[in-house]
Amino acid sequence: MTNMLSSRITQINAGGSDGWDLYRRARAMKEAGEPVIELTIGEHDIGTAAPILKAMYDAALAGKVGYSAIPGTDVLRRAIADRIASRTGVPTGLENVIVVPGGQAGLFAAHVAACDAGDGALYVDPYYATYPGTIRSAGLVPRSLTARAADGFQPAKADILEAAEALRASGVRPRSLLINSPNNPTGVVYSQETMAGIAEACTEADLWLISDEVYDTQVWEGEHRSPRQLPGMSERTLVVGSLSKSHAMTGSRVGWICGPAPAISALNDLVTNTTYGLPGYIQAAAVFALAQGPDFEAEVGAPFMRRRAITRELLSAQNVVREVPMQGAMYAFLDIRATGMSGSAFGEALLDATGVAVMPGESFGAAAAGHVRVAMTVADDKYRQALSKLLSFAAERA
Amino acid sequence: MTNMLSSRITQINAGGSDGWDLYRRARAMKEAGEPVIELTIGEHDIGTAAPILKAMYDAALAGKVGYSAIPGTDVLRRAIADRIASRTGVPTGLENVIVVPGGQAGLFAAHVAACDAGDGALYVDPYYATYPGTIRSAGLVPRSLTARAADGFQPAKADILEAAEALRASGVRPRSLLINSPNNPTGVVYSQETMAGIAEACTEADLWLISDEVYDTQVWEGEHRSPRQLPGMSERTLVVGSLSKSHAMTGSRVGWICGPAPAISALNDLVTNTTYGLPGYIQAAAVFALAQGPDFEAEVGAPFMRRRAITRELLSAQNVVREVPMQGAMYAFLDIRATGMSGSAFGEALLDATGVAVMPGESFGAAAAGHVRVAMTVADDKYRQALSKLLSFAAERA
Repeated sequence: MTNMLSSRITQINAGGSDGWDLYRRARAMKEAGEPVIELTIGEHDIGTAAPILKAMYDAALAGKVGYSAIPGTDVLRRAIADRIASRTGVPTGLENVIVVPGGQAGLFAAHVAACDAGDGALYVDPYYATYPGTIRSAGLVPRSLTARAADGFQPAKADILEAAEALRASGVRPRSLLINSPNNPTGVVYSQETMAGIAEACTEADLWLISDEVYDTQVWEGEHRSPRQLPGMSERTLVVGSLSKSHAMTGSRVGWICGPAPAISALNDLVTNTTYGLPGYIQAAAVFALAQGPDFEAEVGAPFMRRRAITRELLSAQNVVREVPMQGAMYAFLDIRATGMSGSAFGEALLDATGVAVMPGESFGAAAAGHVRVAMTVADDKYRQALSKLLSFAAERA
Repeated sequence: MTNMLSSRITQINAGGSDGWDLYRRARAMKEAGEPVIELTIGEHDIGTAAPILKAMYDAALAGKVGYSAIPGTDVLRRAIADRIASRTGVPTGLENVIVVPGGQAGLFAAHVAACDAGDGALYVDPYYATYPGTIRSAGLVPRSLTARAADGFQPAKADILEAAEALRASGVRPRSLLINSPNNPTGVVYSQETMAGIAEACTEADLWLISDEVYDTQVWEGEHRSPRQLPGMSERTLVVGSLSKSHAMTGSRVGWICGPAPAISALNDLVTNTTYGLPGYIQAAAVFALAQGPDFEAEVGAPFMRRRAITRELLSAQNVVREVPMQGAMYAFLDIRATGMSGSAFGEALLDATGVAVMPGESFGAAAAGHVRVAMTVADDKYRQALSKLLSFAAERA
């Protein structure tokens, strides 16, 4: 017994890999001076805009360096609430928003609010790499349901209900479903039918819906849909948002949860004891960033739009690698099954042969096997060159 | 059942007040334009030093705006480890340190690492206001033990063992003890005998020791003692540290946990899923701040040393209010029992009569009843004036 860590913390990664082995190998190669092109993580190549950093520094010099409002300053929460209301049409006030240090903190806190220790939490495979660990960190039983490649990675209502039922059958109370649209890693945007099915399933199984919408400004076809817009859903949906992707502020850790007022009030108690308030100067920078409006957000998203076009152009000139419809987010999710290789084997061999690093689909779950995720996060010409190498490599293996 | 929040999140404050009612009333009065002198929270009047803010901005402009190393950058962890080693004599390496967004995040994470849901967590009354809520946020059963005014607020080994036994008797496994020296709110520094008793109790009852040492540079008598220095204790102690108090960086949320390597490794998994890495520019600012060395830390602490002298001077000229020995931290903890009032009644009446806001002892637990905590956080002359008003008020009531 002596000095034993808690079971819950030692089981966060369930004894397995966290899925980032290839990423770390590529990073190590690059640091050792090898010419690696990293298309691994969702990090903009443009960095945070200088005026936002200037606003941050000005706020710091003006004295915003002490303890700040724990749920977020009123002006920041107002800016977030107004933006959500204008983008979704759902009435949203200060009482519906709490600021947290990044979307990841929001995912964790939302699960703590929705579920008690030992409850079951559903998520969709393929999934962003931290989802199962986030659910385990909150002391919950993770249970995935599959969004199939054959269905365009759109999850089905019946599969959600079946996963909830499977938890119940094993004596675990299902309490939440975590979704992400636009989706990382697949780049798909959930259709109206998918969202309606999700809403119905959550209502029928009495689940909280935790909706990770951090890519909401990066939709290349149609428009962003938030499940909070659907009848009856605003009362059972916790939306997690962030400035990371929309404003190229990944490192600044500005996120939020939007939900029913009683949930936000309870989350304030949790945040008081887990993170406290964000730095005041970062909150001021966030207010400044949000004030730049939709044009600025479109500018931040534009490089991915351009590289999406490059991707489609190069893919159309070959027939080995197939595109998963590029509807949103900053990734090309490519079906490489024609090579006969797994995503992992393909990724490792590609890195060795060409110095191009992409993420194996398997890093994001079994349903993503035979795919690779290509982050479109280097300059256009470099991206074109790297993707060409990937396609030549695939052609040789096919 | 529908839309019900988790039991754990709704019970964080155990249905009671969070103890900050007087603080909020004083803040509201001040915002309404009333001439209130706030001696409520532990916030320096000097703000973060301009060169630290400049270092932060320089780092941001130099590109440290993306996702950063989750456990903290190597250079920051090295600076923290070296400082701990040089201050305590305990060998400390990178593998013993993880950076978290503030000491509060460290307190929460340390409890998650030490205890499983439903385990018992001990803490000492009087306590910093968030302690019980932090323990409940981690899904644990809080159990306090009393450090008595008559014992100079030094906790006794027998009381720790008795509290652990009481948990056991109620079917709860005790797994941790949370201590804080220099202490908030009492300003006492635990003696060598107290620390030895704590270490023995933790070993005998097989408890993790979570040692909140955020005031470690503010010791006015003797020197700071870390229980990690005691034989056998480095393997069962998780030290929570921060730059908030030592470097006047309260708002920047830079904290850390120092402990055995396996615990730090497990905490990395937790932090990956709960907060992710701190902003790179803040980590750079923290490295710069630590490089200023002990002279800078003494400079940040100097105002409290001066105001401690003012406090003693004024107290010595009267005999109603009694001093709890001012050994460390940034507070004067005053025994006002000669007025016949509770700390709460005294605080409320003092605010109404004089505009001076101090924290009722009861905000920090039953053991602090009949006391008030005076944060020495305004300019010397203003502090002298405010404390004089408090003493006159007490004299009138006695």
